[in-house]
Amino acid sequence: MKSTMQDRELLVRDILAHGQRVYGDSRVVRCADGPAARSSQTFADIADQAERLAAALTRLGVRPGERVATLAWNTPEHLVAYLAVPSMGAVLHTLNLRLHHDQLGYIVEHAEDAFLLVDATLLDMLAPLRDRLGGVRHVVVIGGAPEVDLPGHITVHRWDELLAAERPGFVWPDLDEREAAALCYTTGTTGDPKGVAYSHRSISLHTLGVSASAGFAMHDGDRVLPIVPMFHANAWGWPYAAWLAGSDLIMNGRLLHTPDLARVINEERPTAVAAICTIWNSLVRHGEQHPLDLSSVRLAGCGGATPPRALLQQLKDRYGVRLKQGWGLTETSPLATFAVPPHGTPDEDEVDWLAKSGRVMPYVEVRLIGEDGSEQPWDGTSVGELELRGPWVTGSYFNTEDSPEKFHDGWLRTGDLGVIEPGGWVVVSDRLKDGIKSGGEWISTIELENAITEHPAVLEAVVVGVPDPRWEERPLACVSLVPGAEIGGDGLREFLAGRVARWWIPERWSFVDAVPKTSVGKYDKRSVRTLYAEGALDVWLPRDSDAQVPTESGPPQE
Amino acid sequence: MKSTMQDRELLVRDILAHGQRVYGDSRVVRCADGPAARSSQTFADIADQAERLAAALTRLGVRPGERVATLAWNTPEHLVAYLAVPSMGAVLHTLNLRLHHDQLGYIVEHAEDAFLLVDATLLDMLAPLRDRLGGVRHVVVIGGAPEVDLPGHITVHRWDELLAAERPGFVWPDLDEREAAALCYTTGTTGDPKGVAYSHRSISLHTLGVSASAGFAMHDGDRVLPIVPMFHANAWGWPYAAWLAGSDLIMNGRLLHTPDLARVINEERPTAVAAICTIWNSLVRHGEQHPLDLSSVRLAGCGGATPPRALLQQLKDRYGVRLKQGWGLTETSPLATFAVPPHGTPDEDEVDWLAKSGRVMPYVEVRLIGEDGSEQPWDGTSVGELELRGPWVTGSYFNTEDSPEKFHDGWLRTGDLGVIEPGGWVVVSDRLKDGIKSGGEWISTIELENAITEHPAVLEAVVVGVPDPRWEERPLACVSLVPGAEIGGDGLREFLAGRVARWWIPERWSFVDAVPKTSVGKYDKRSVRTLYAEGALDVWLPRDSDAQVPTESGPPQE
Repeated sequence: MKSTMQDRELLVRDILAHGQRVYGDSRVVRCADGPAARSSQTFADIADQAERLAAALTRLGVRPGERVATLAWNTPEHLVAYLAVPSMGAVLHTLNLRLHHDQLGYIVEHAEDAFLLVDATLLDMLAPLRDRLGGVRHVVVIGGAPEVDLPGHITVHRWDELLAAERPGFVWPDLDEREAAALCYTTGTTGDPKGVAYSHRSISLHTLGVSASAGFAMHDGDRVLPIVPMFHANAWGWPYAAWLAGSDLIMNGRLLHTPDLARVINEERPTAVAAICTIWNSLVRHGEQHPLDLSSVRLAGCGGATPPRALLQQLKDRYGVRLKQGWGLTETSPLATFAVPPHGTPDEDEVDWLAKSGRVMPYVEVRLIGEDGSEQPWDGTSVGELELRGPWVTGSYFNTEDSPEKFHDGWLRTGDLGVIEPGGWVVVSDRLKDGIKSGGEWISTIELENAITEHPAVLEAVVVGVPDPRWEERPLACVSLVPGAEIGGDGLREFLAGRVARWWIPERWSFVDAVPKTSVGKYDKRSVRTLYAEGALDVWLPRDSDAQVPTESGPPQE
Repeated sequence: MKSTMQDRELLVRDILAHGQRVYGDSRVVRCADGPAARSSQTFADIADQAERLAAALTRLGVRPGERVATLAWNTPEHLVAYLAVPSMGAVLHTLNLRLHHDQLGYIVEHAEDAFLLVDATLLDMLAPLRDRLGGVRHVVVIGGAPEVDLPGHITVHRWDELLAAERPGFVWPDLDEREAAALCYTTGTTGDPKGVAYSHRSISLHTLGVSASAGFAMHDGDRVLPIVPMFHANAWGWPYAAWLAGSDLIMNGRLLHTPDLARVINEERPTAVAAICTIWNSLVRHGEQHPLDLSSVRLAGCGGATPPRALLQQLKDRYGVRLKQGWGLTETSPLATFAVPPHGTPDEDEVDWLAKSGRVMPYVEVRLIGEDGSEQPWDGTSVGELELRGPWVTGSYFNTEDSPEKFHDGWLRTGDLGVIEPGGWVVVSDRLKDGIKSGGEWISTIELENAITEHPAVLEAVVVGVPDPRWEERPLACVSLVPGAEIGGDGLREFLAGRVARWWIPERWSFVDAVPKTSVGKYDKRSVRTLYAEGALDVWLPRDSDAQVPTESGPPQE
């Protein structure tokens, strides 16, 4: 039986229109350094600019579905592009400015980007891409002079001039909600980057989904600071959710050094802050020596990696901040779970809940597939690969051969290993490829890293599996220490005793100035493994150990 | 450009599955009178029954899209039907048990109901419907013996036996999200009732929409008491929203007398309560003489009619309860607006915001059409008919000839007259057909009713327009007084002076024991107008007035 309901498509333009008409007085704050450290605009202003940008891009000949790429910090202009580009029927392609130019060039070509919106401060990044910009017709320079040497077929514009030449009042087209609205490439550590093309529908549903109490529950009194970059999986959905709820948005631009972030937080008093764990960690360290006022923060979100329990505890004890994990991938828009402790959780149990990867979101389905391919129970002990399904989960990759290894009967294989507890609580223990199977049993590198990081002398710790003649694989801990602190492998092994199973305790320890990280700030385990295999790591072993390590001259002899 | 996202339909079964798997320990409480006054079940239990009900209906031969009607109070079984019937691909048709049997018979026939799920206490209602049950194949009696005399072609079952004979584990089918999931008839005061067929998509989106902070923001710590009947526009979306959020649900069944409701509230300590304004009014009156503990209530919702300002003020002053209006129609699922005051509103201004009909919800569009057919600005003063558009707004009626008078270029004409203030705040002043145009200017009957009700002697007041030889139309006030109170037209006219424009003050006053109400508890203005026209109302006029009133022997002479 057919329903009688109106056939209204779910479009990004509805998000734009709602913030514009209903919350036109809400504000977008631009933070900067120097004398013009702060300025702000209303949502009405931003929407006006979105209408002008759409008019300008139309005048320049953008076609429906064409890719308009951004190479930009978290700025009001980036927000304008978030709203305008999908609403006009083009596809917003957020480029990751942390990528090596080889990868970036590959992505720009593969996505067939036709327009580039680039922050003036990032123009230098285009030089090494010259040869890959064959498909780019226009470059729009944001916030500065367009001083750049580009191939002759590209027309260069200034953002301000382009928008000033247009009038607001652009009429947004009717679109199919299943058409692509945005494109984001995964920063896979193996193989070529792969594009995920979000639809208007998936963005709309993700935005509504994260707006519930099991998500961010943003409201018109919030002041939202998404430190997570807008090129990183839609900044976890925070900009759209904040715009739809009428929350003020604080855009920190290039201010990413910890003292700058601390200043922004102290001055802007955000109620909601999203950042990867390493940023939260740096903020807490910074707060030990300098003023850091987190008293305004009611919602603190992190993602990208599991936060050490010590960090959760410190944030709670010192600042009353409950840092909530989100778990997901670029492929999942990204929020699949979020760690909101059950209402009424006693104070002393809160960190136990915050330490989990989160509870599955409405309309997202999660399942656990064991090594034998069978579905595992939600019992908190059965381990398997986590698989996801839902209206904001990808089912394929853009312009790429089928990737059967990424999907399983219509479910996305996340590549994450973990358990599901009763009540839909996911606890990720490892990336499948990072998991360590030692003597036939799994060791969770994430749990080990957390346990090591609890030692006050440890700044960061990354654990990888390395070959071992006796146990097949054993953990190697690569550790950086708090400046001035001193501890060795012996001390840390002692510290771990009682904290983790005895056979989990690594024999191999490497102390480094900084642990390697990927372009989005995650621990770069592949690098650590490679460095180790090449004998390029200085490895400490207990005196009585029979473990061996490779050297520059070759692998250990068996 | 096509997106890469999974094509997952939005289905009611996803709501069911989420509550079942993620919040299986949340509870559904059954309130009753007598010795078994209270019992409760888990969400897991309810979902188990939903699976059994689907298996039973399948065994009885329900076909995809067939209507399964409910004639039931707010009970756990009604919730089971809410979850099971749409999820299995049939259509849940909630029958309004307050309707006259003529209308009910018309609706059962028009909807082609094939199954009836009926509370044992309501079986008597079927007797006068005997001749209209030709299409009904099975009647399932909930909570009692199936003692009923029905036509021979109908098989009668007991709910308990039917479910006990099945096993849980029903496999919910894949469905098209645009198929009908539920059906509800409008209780129009003119013409035949009309059916609105909600889709899986519209229910899903409405549920997500009302779950945001601009809506109910229910969470797993809430205890939700929807006093609003489940046959009344999906109980405003509260059951599905509570289920999706894992909020406990309190089902008050047949307990609708004010002392019983007060007892339920005092004992169950709900955090969220939804009821029409007259119920809230009665509760407040009751609380003047008896214990009423509203301290647990964080969310109080009302709808169906504009609450008098006096009621809002009393609830706030005496109980700290901010009663929030929702505005919408059966045709709009129903929430189109909700009156959440802007965050940070000073205490003394709160009632000003609560007195509005609400702020437009995300993904719902509202516009104002003036008498000349042109769109009016959101300036808070331009009056017009409110029109709505959105994914949970109906675009037609079930099995009915086109109703062009109900739609306008793809927008639903709400039949409500009002203004839109900047920021998307709707203030309904009247039903279009109830609006009074006196000497060429609009008088808001709702505002007049509110002003009259502020007098402490007044229990309820309804204002209608009546013909007037000089001004075309003038307001007539029909008033019931608080028991024991005494006041007349003179006193109330004096009271209104200064509170409303002088020319708004009614000349015609009628004092009655109870103001007439419709089947869903709204003021029945049509009845009042008819009674007046027939001279059946005792009307008081000021001594110096030249106004005239009809008498039983005929209309006033001109």
